[in-house]
Amino acid sequence: MSSVATLGLAGKALAETAAAAPAAAPGADLPPNIPPWTRSLGAPTAKPYGTPSKYESSVIRHLYPGLTEPMSAYSTSPLQDLDGIITPNGLFYERHHAGVPQIDPAQHRLMVHGLVDTPLLFTVDELRQFPSQSRIHFLECSGNPSFTPPWGKTAAEVCGLLSCAQWTGVPLKTVLEECGLKPQAKWVIAEGADGAAMDRSIPIEKCLDDAMLVYSQNGERLRPEQGYPLRLLVPGFEGNMNVKWLRRLHVTDAPAYTREETAKYTDLLANGKARKFSFVMECKSLITAPSGTHKLTRKGKHEMRGIAWSGHGKITNVDVSVDGGDNWYPATLDAPVLDKALTAFRAPFDWHGEELMIMSRAIDETGYVQPTLQQLIDVRGKVSFYHNNAIQPWKIDANGEVTNGRA
Amino acid sequence: MSSVATLGLAGKALAETAAAAPAAAPGADLPPNIPPWTRSLGAPTAKPYGTPSKYESSVIRHLYPGLTEPMSAYSTSPLQDLDGIITPNGLFYERHHAGVPQIDPAQHRLMVHGLVDTPLLFTVDELRQFPSQSRIHFLECSGNPSFTPPWGKTAAEVCGLLSCAQWTGVPLKTVLEECGLKPQAKWVIAEGADGAAMDRSIPIEKCLDDAMLVYSQNGERLRPEQGYPLRLLVPGFEGNMNVKWLRRLHVTDAPAYTREETAKYTDLLANGKARKFSFVMECKSLITAPSGTHKLTRKGKHEMRGIAWSGHGKITNVDVSVDGGDNWYPATLDAPVLDKALTAFRAPFDWHGEELMIMSRAIDETGYVQPTLQQLIDVRGKVSFYHNNAIQPWKIDANGEVTNGRA
Repeated sequence: MSSVATLGLAGKALAETAAAAPAAAPGADLPPNIPPWTRSLGAPTAKPYGTPSKYESSVIRHLYPGLTEPMSAYSTSPLQDLDGIITPNGLFYERHHAGVPQIDPAQHRLMVHGLVDTPLLFTVDELRQFPSQSRIHFLECSGNPSFTPPWGKTAAEVCGLLSCAQWTGVPLKTVLEECGLKPQAKWVIAEGADGAAMDRSIPIEKCLDDAMLVYSQNGERLRPEQGYPLRLLVPGFEGNMNVKWLRRLHVTDAPAYTREETAKYTDLLANGKARKFSFVMECKSLITAPSGTHKLTRKGKHEMRGIAWSGHGKITNVDVSVDGGDNWYPATLDAPVLDKALTAFRAPFDWHGEELMIMSRAIDETGYVQPTLQQLIDVRGKVSFYHNNAIQPWKIDANGEVTNGRA
Repeated sequence: MSSVATLGLAGKALAETAAAAPAAAPGADLPPNIPPWTRSLGAPTAKPYGTPSKYESSVIRHLYPGLTEPMSAYSTSPLQDLDGIITPNGLFYERHHAGVPQIDPAQHRLMVHGLVDTPLLFTVDELRQFPSQSRIHFLECSGNPSFTPPWGKTAAEVCGLLSCAQWTGVPLKTVLEECGLKPQAKWVIAEGADGAAMDRSIPIEKCLDDAMLVYSQNGERLRPEQGYPLRLLVPGFEGNMNVKWLRRLHVTDAPAYTREETAKYTDLLANGKARKFSFVMECKSLITAPSGTHKLTRKGKHEMRGIAWSGHGKITNVDVSVDGGDNWYPATLDAPVLDKALTAFRAPFDWHGEELMIMSRAIDETGYVQPTLQQLIDVRGKVSFYHNNAIQPWKIDANGEVTNGRA
């Protein structure tokens, strides 16, 4: 059995504390400190919709560093303060191209037309009557982060355009089959009802695989900033293909080559050409604790914790390093390990006041290994912007302060 | 491939809609309705902590029907409006005995003492430094619902003292071993820091199995009404054993026989004796859609959806019936199916204007089958109050209106 000395961890011997504050100690069987909230009634039950403690008011979303324009903008999930794999809806990252429309669900319609036998219009209530599915999937912006400095300070600044939820909706396949797909149907152009009328081309194979028309997130209806009352979910594909405020599905025989899949959201290579249709978010991981701006306050045993994910399927392994990648050892994955979902990992490490460079490296079920930034640059050059899934280093200095290890 | 006529489901042929509102139809390639939110900018990005749409303002917690006193009170999760297995933190059910204390986490301490080698005091930050775990578990009040009328109208009124979340914390075993358990240690008395100083006796076997000291729920720190900054989680055990605002763990050789495990939270039998220590919440299920106050608005194919759970482990089967239990057929379980967590199920049914009595019956991995209310009464009599896990019937009448099938 371990003792305080052996584990070198937290906890204070009771006698010591009692001696330090003898006046407050009412007896051997009680903690020395009888706080005021134990001597009084608290707040009434049934705040109709609950909110976090006032002591957690710093755990919020922020605009992406450097952005000042709040309409076509991003906000990040505070990953350095979160645990587990579910992102609370109030802290789910945002990316909008024309702000957040306030949509009356009774007025909203989804049109399905083009290469179908019967073009159809649906209300949200009608879509809720189809057979439903609930699945846990991550969502990530493809520019999370870019390839160039300035590098972020915190986990949110480095990688906060990433969140994960349980989504409920109707398989897109069901609705397309309701309309009847013509044999020439190869793509579906999805369009949002926001002021940007965001549109993206989705290959028919994905539409007939695991794509969903989603109306609920983490149990309740979608939040406005997540597409209320209806969004497309294409699990594992880059964020903005998961079109929010979905109003139209145009079935076609070719992609639409919209602005957001040509001028934007493509990866420019060193030769001046761009990769065409880089849809899948590749395998990636991030240590969230300790991470930038955290501080280790004692020497001894610690645990590093983080998240791993892949747009190609399940995570099979996460390795971690404390010496900048010279040596690696396996982290433990927490159940459940799900398809295209965040997977929580953790690993022990020792710190005795020396400088450490901690990092994690995820591997998915296709065998793909998360690369270093240099490996990505070797292939794509330095003008690329999107799809940076490089290993993220955090430096722990002699004072225990944690900073971005990207020099 | 199915057509509208075959599936008998939702959707309106586009030509028909366009004909009904020809003035609004700008062209064959667009939905006839171009709403105002597509013609304007929306709200700015980065509401620091998001909230639901104003159109969902009816989806809230309510005081338990009949209660008017808000301090020692219950509020229910609106199960009839929720999907999937994750309850958003703002809608997680509440049960408090002296209101909700507002605790400063920097002032909070956990004392572990009694039959240990080294009594210890911990801060929350110290507990966060131990190796952590994240797991999805349900939580249910043992009086959910009682055995006697009036029966509730909605799913929330019938069974809303039930929710499910991903919890993060440190295994209780780790902390007890840090203190060093003496061989005589058989029970742990857990005490809360609220004005009620809620206390319950937990068998040492549970403490060394899957019990956790929890600081986070669905990613973020616990909400005040869920025990911020620290609660005990004893997965599968009745709600109030999961002591909130946890301040003390007293390791003993016998249970404390506190008020909340003797005068309250015991099941009185017909012979005047009470069952001793009915900790585990037995296997149960509930159809949430359609459920009381819902209405079917068309004839044809429908889907019933619900949740199942067991304090003994995983759900293996859910059967459903549309004829009051004379005939049963299997529902589909949605992944993930987890230990002591809600499991979502669904099953198709037809309705053509006849009266139906729909119900669900869960079976867990021990082979236990959810009983009828009459079966429970046959064993326990009618004076019992807690631990009613009976099958819940919903009646669909000729107009499609859904009411509680319990006459």
